Amino acid sequence: MRTVFVNGNYVDENDAKISVFDRGFLFADGVYEVTSVLGGKLVDFEGHFSRLTRSLSELEMGLDVSRDDLLGMHRELVLRNNLDEGLVYLQVTRGAADRDFAFPPEGTPNTIVGFTQSLNLINSEKAKTGISVIFVEDLRWGRCDIKTVQLLYPSLASMQARKKGKQGAWFVRDGFITEGTANNAYIVTKEGTIVTRDLSPSILSGITRKAVLACADKLQMKVEERAFSVDEVADAVEAFTTAATIFVMPVVEIEGKQVGDGKPGPVARKLREIYIEESLKAAT
Amino acid sequence: MRTVFVNGNYVDENDAKISVFDRGFLFADGVYEVTSVLGGKLVDFEGHFSRLTRSLSELEMGLDVSRDDLLGMHRELVLRNNLDEGLVYLQVTRGAADRDFAFPPEGTPNTIVGFTQSLNLINSEKAKTGISVIFVEDLRWGRCDIKTVQLLYPSLASMQARKKGKQGAWFVRDGFITEGTANNAYIVTKEGTIVTRDLSPSILSGITRKAVLACADKLQMKVEERAFSVDEVADAVEAFTTAATIFVMPVVEIEGKQVGDGKPGPVARKLREIYIEESLKAAT
Repeated sequence: MRTVFVNGNYVDENDAKISVFDRGFLFADGVYEVTSVLGGKLVDFEGHFSRLTRSLSELEMGLDVSRDDLLGMHRELVLRNNLDEGLVYLQVTRGAADRDFAFPPEGTPNTIVGFTQSLNLINSEKAKTGISVIFVEDLRWGRCDIKTVQLLYPSLASMQARKKGKQGAWFVRDGFITEGTANNAYIVTKEGTIVTRDLSPSILSGITRKAVLACADKLQMKVEERAFSVDEVADAVEAFTTAATIFVMPVVEIEGKQVGDGKPGPVARKLREIYIEESLKAAT
Repeated sequence: MRTVFVNGNYVDENDAKISVFDRGFLFADGVYEVTSVLGGKLVDFEGHFSRLTRSLSELEMGLDVSRDDLLGMHRELVLRNNLDEGLVYLQVTRGAADRDFAFPPEGTPNTIVGFTQSLNLINSEKAKTGISVIFVEDLRWGRCDIKTVQLLYPSLASMQARKKGKQGAWFVRDGFITEGTANNAYIVTKEGTIVTRDLSPSILSGITRKAVLACADKLQMKVEERAFSVDEVADAVEAFTTAATIFVMPVVEIEGKQVGDGKPGPVARKLREIYIEESLKAAT
C-alpha cells in the first residue's frame, strides 16, 4: 500500500480522499506537476516548482504552502514509499466550495495531493525499441502552456493510439505538430537539425524539454524551435519525445510509416544517454 | 447540512468524499447534468438523462446504473433535502484507478455523485432586471457538445465578467458568438427574428434551449439557428440566454453597450413566462 499525501496528512492510499465539492473534481480547476525520482532523489524539483508557480499565477490561484513545504512533502513521500525510481505526482486545486463558476471566497484553502508511482525509468524497455505514434487532431483548449488537469482529450488520444496497437499520439493543428499527449515532440531533419515546436500557448513548456535542449546545445547539435509540419515528419530521419518520466523516448514509427531505419536513431540515443547522466548528477 | 449521494450512499455533505485517484479529479474524465427542480418536481429529467447518455457514449464511458436508479437518486435527494426549488447536480466519472492516460481496466466502477442546491428560480431577481455580459475569446476545446467537467475556462470567463461588475460572459470564436459560459446565447434582430447558434461540436445542445425553441415555435416566433456575429449583436434589439437553472434570462447590456432600451425585452419575457408555465405543468 502506498502512502499518499492529502492536505497535510500522510495516509494509506485507500483512505486518500477529497471532498466531492473540490473544484478539481467539479471544474478541473487544478494544476499538477510530475517530478521523476532516480536513486531516491528528485530530478529538477526547482524546475517543476517554478512551472507550478507559473501555472497557479496564470489561473490566479494562490498557494497556501511554501516551496520548502512542497519539497519536504516530495522527500517524505519518496521515503515513506521506499521509492528508488519513479515519480512524485503533485496536484494543487482551488479547494472545496459549494459549486459555483465564480471562484470560492478568499481564504478557501487549496487542496494539495501528492503520491508516488514506481517505474523503471532508466532501463525502460520501450526506450530500447522506440515507440510508434499516431497523429490526432489537436482539439485541446487554447492554453496548453498551463499544466491543468484538463487531460480528458490527451487521455482519449492515448486510447485511440492504444486501439491501433501504438504507444502514443502526436497532436496536429492546422497541419503542424504541436506536441505529444503528455510530452514534447521532436524530429531530426536530413541535415541533422533537431526541430521542436517553439514555446507558445499551444504547448507545455517541458521541464525535460529545456534540459534536453541544453544537452543538445552542449553536444553542439543544431536545434530549431519552430512549428514543423506533417510533411516534414514524413521526411525526418529521426523522431523522439521528451517528458519527465520518459526522458528522451525514440519514436520509430509515425502514423504507420517507419522513421529512418525504424530503430532508435543516434541523436535520440545520445541525448537520452547524456540527459540521464546529467540528471543522475544533478538529482537531489 | 445537505445530504449528498456518493456511489450508492446518502451521506452528510461533510462526509461526501471520493478517492484522490478518481479520474474526474486527475483527468477531468467525467460528465455532468444539472436538472432544475420546481415545487419538488424534476424538470425534464428525460432530456437530461438522454444527454448524459450521449456524453458518456462520446467518451466511450460505461454507466453502471440504470435510468431508474438515477431517477430514484434524484427524487431521493429532493426528498432528503426538502428541496422545493433549485437543482440536482449529477456527475459521473470513469472511476478511480492508478493514474494512467489509458482508461482503467474494464469493470472499474463509475464514480457517481449527486447533490442539490436550493435556488430561487422562478422569482429570480436577475430575471427582472436582466443581466450584463462581456465577450470573452472562446479558447475551449473542440468538443463543447460533450458536457464534461472541463469547466476551468468558463469559470475563468465568469470571473473576468465579475471583476468588471458584470454577470456573465459570451464566448466569441472567429468573430461569431458560440454560447455563454454555462448557457446558450440568443439575440433578437430588428426584424423580430430570434437567432441562436446552430448545434455543432462548438456548443452544448441545451435541454432548456430545445424547450425554449419549442415555446418560440408554439408562439409562432421566427427562429434562425445559425452563427451570429459580434456586429449582429451590436444591432440586436434584444438578447437573452437559456440554461436549466436560469430558464430564460434577459441580457440587457453586452460588452458595455445597452441592448435595446436596456430593459428585458418582450420576446425574452414572453418566452420566460411560457417556459415556466410549461415546465410547471410537465415537471414530474
